Amino acid sequence: MERVAIRTGKPYEVVIGHGLLPRAGELLPLRGVKKAAVITDSAVGPLYAEPVEASLRAAGVEAVRFTFPGGEEHKSLQTVGEILEFLAREGLTRSDLVVALGGGIVGDVAGFAASAFLRGIAFVQLPTTLLAAVDSSVGGKTGVNLTAGKNLAGAFYQPELVLCDCDTFETLSPEIFADGRAEAVKYGVIRDAEFFDRLKTGDFSEIVPIVKRSVEWKAAIVGADEFESGERKLLNFGHTLGHAIEKESGYRITHGHAVAIGMALMAKAADAHGLSAEPCAARVREALVANGLPVKSPFPPEALMGALLSDKKRAGDTLTLVLPERIGNCVLHPVKVDGVLDFIRAGF
Amino acid sequence: MERVAIRTGKPYEVVIGHGLLPRAGELLPLRGVKKAAVITDSAVGPLYAEPVEASLRAAGVEAVRFTFPGGEEHKSLQTVGEILEFLAREGLTRSDLVVALGGGIVGDVAGFAASAFLRGIAFVQLPTTLLAAVDSSVGGKTGVNLTAGKNLAGAFYQPELVLCDCDTFETLSPEIFADGRAEAVKYGVIRDAEFFDRLKTGDFSEIVPIVKRSVEWKAAIVGADEFESGERKLLNFGHTLGHAIEKESGYRITHGHAVAIGMALMAKAADAHGLSAEPCAARVREALVANGLPVKSPFPPEALMGALLSDKKRAGDTLTLVLPERIGNCVLHPVKVDGVLDFIRAGF
Repeated sequence: MERVAIRTGKPYEVVIGHGLLPRAGELLPLRGVKKAAVITDSAVGPLYAEPVEASLRAAGVEAVRFTFPGGEEHKSLQTVGEILEFLAREGLTRSDLVVALGGGIVGDVAGFAASAFLRGIAFVQLPTTLLAAVDSSVGGKTGVNLTAGKNLAGAFYQPELVLCDCDTFETLSPEIFADGRAEAVKYGVIRDAEFFDRLKTGDFSEIVPIVKRSVEWKAAIVGADEFESGERKLLNFGHTLGHAIEKESGYRITHGHAVAIGMALMAKAADAHGLSAEPCAARVREALVANGLPVKSPFPPEALMGALLSDKKRAGDTLTLVLPERIGNCVLHPVKVDGVLDFIRAGF
Repeated sequence: MERVAIRTGKPYEVVIGHGLLPRAGELLPLRGVKKAAVITDSAVGPLYAEPVEASLRAAGVEAVRFTFPGGEEHKSLQTVGEILEFLAREGLTRSDLVVALGGGIVGDVAGFAASAFLRGIAFVQLPTTLLAAVDSSVGGKTGVNLTAGKNLAGAFYQPELVLCDCDTFETLSPEIFADGRAEAVKYGVIRDAEFFDRLKTGDFSEIVPIVKRSVEWKAAIVGADEFESGERKLLNFGHTLGHAIEKESGYRITHGHAVAIGMALMAKAADAHGLSAEPCAARVREALVANGLPVKSPFPPEALMGALLSDKKRAGDTLTLVLPERIGNCVLHPVKVDGVLDFIRAGF
């Protein structure tokens, strides 16, 4: 079992290991907690809720469960409203606990509901996907989609603890697992050449240290910049194009797969424009392919411009792209909106 | 024009005066703001939105308006969702501004929406009721009602500025104006005997200094205790019983009126139990009556117990009551749940 300290506004720990869910009652911060509300979705609940709840009960805490249907369309204000009504109906108080058990969507909606219930009660995250473990469990971002776009409403709200039981990844499909691989590779490209070299073969059998290193990098970058003004933008490597590809596909291409394509394209564009000190594109591409990830966009660059320019990170007439200067070091590269298409075309 | 500095987590000012709404474009913090979303209700919008928007436009800011129906039943997550969709549809960015124009409900739902949109964009409050000016414009509490009770979801979120144009109070009915009178009298009883003496005649013709002193007291108390653990509980004087009376009446008795009854009853109970150093009940009662406020509960104490004991401020088996020790000084008085009925009965 490994522990990573997260030093954002409110410090907390990410605990990473095997066989942790049945030990939830021992590992979670339960001082003063009378009731814990386990929030989960229809895919995860039947697999993992019972051992968590049994462990909580053994620790003397009453456990109640709210299950909502899985899928991006339920990452909505309506789901958050249903969770809030559930917490109120169950009479949770300010000294009780919300337990988010599931992937990124569960963490997002349960965390947002916890931030709002009684104007904020404690919550913990128990990520059950590799992507949630290496990405959304650090940073304090919670939220929902609106009609106009993804993640447009939410709160910055930190958990009390993240308990990451890597055994849960065994029930993920290779495709869903690969969504998390893409984010791990990303940390290698933006900040850690040695980590990149470890991941480039696609061997994730030693999972705990991989999750640990990913969490450490995300924590280091987010900790330096909790409210997303500078350094944190590095985490968007592959994401600006990735989000546009996800959107253009009607979200049939999942997040990690779209980010993989985005990383491959941006590395190629950086090479083509002579902005990388060492050529990166071939190495990035090979690592992604070895991890079962795609590297080609099914859409031409022109088709992605609408989504690209409505990116919520755009500031006025400038879009800040993230480019690999070499493996292990990415840099921010602002591009004028009317030059974006020409710039990215070189990556396709 | 008076200014009160509020030193909570993020400092801001409450500006109080006459003729301020048509000067909104000059007085509001508009640096970098391209678009302002004026959120208002169907009672206030037709009266006051146009001069605010004209003033914003004169300052070079695009103004768009969202109006929702007035009334407590619209202080809901649904209204917040509609505001969020409106902000997204209008394409507001993190450098834009939400303008809450109206009474407490408008401030609550618009502030909660602003806290959530893009995980937080700037908002200002333009209170148009005396109650909103002296109470809900300070403290950073935003929120909505759930099925299970009032104010059960929301966020602690501070405005950039509160612009309080006392001219707007001229269109309030005497009953709605009296809701604010009750809160002003409350500050006198809990912390300021001199202020109490000024208010006890019911003369509110010099309104700016009354709002100013009320805001100063609320700011002083909230500033000492932003997240409501100790001192801030004093602000609940009259509110524990008041909330129960509001609820039992099906919210036909408005907030300030119910709080007035609650204050009268608690003062009488404090006297009866020998907990006040000087008898207070008669003086509190006379001041409330002079301000057109009720002092008798239409419900017997037994009828209020259910609501009293579900108060979200209850901690386990103890309810903390606020009692006047003398005019100008209230104290916290914890009572065991099974002793509450006997205690309050002495006030009826």
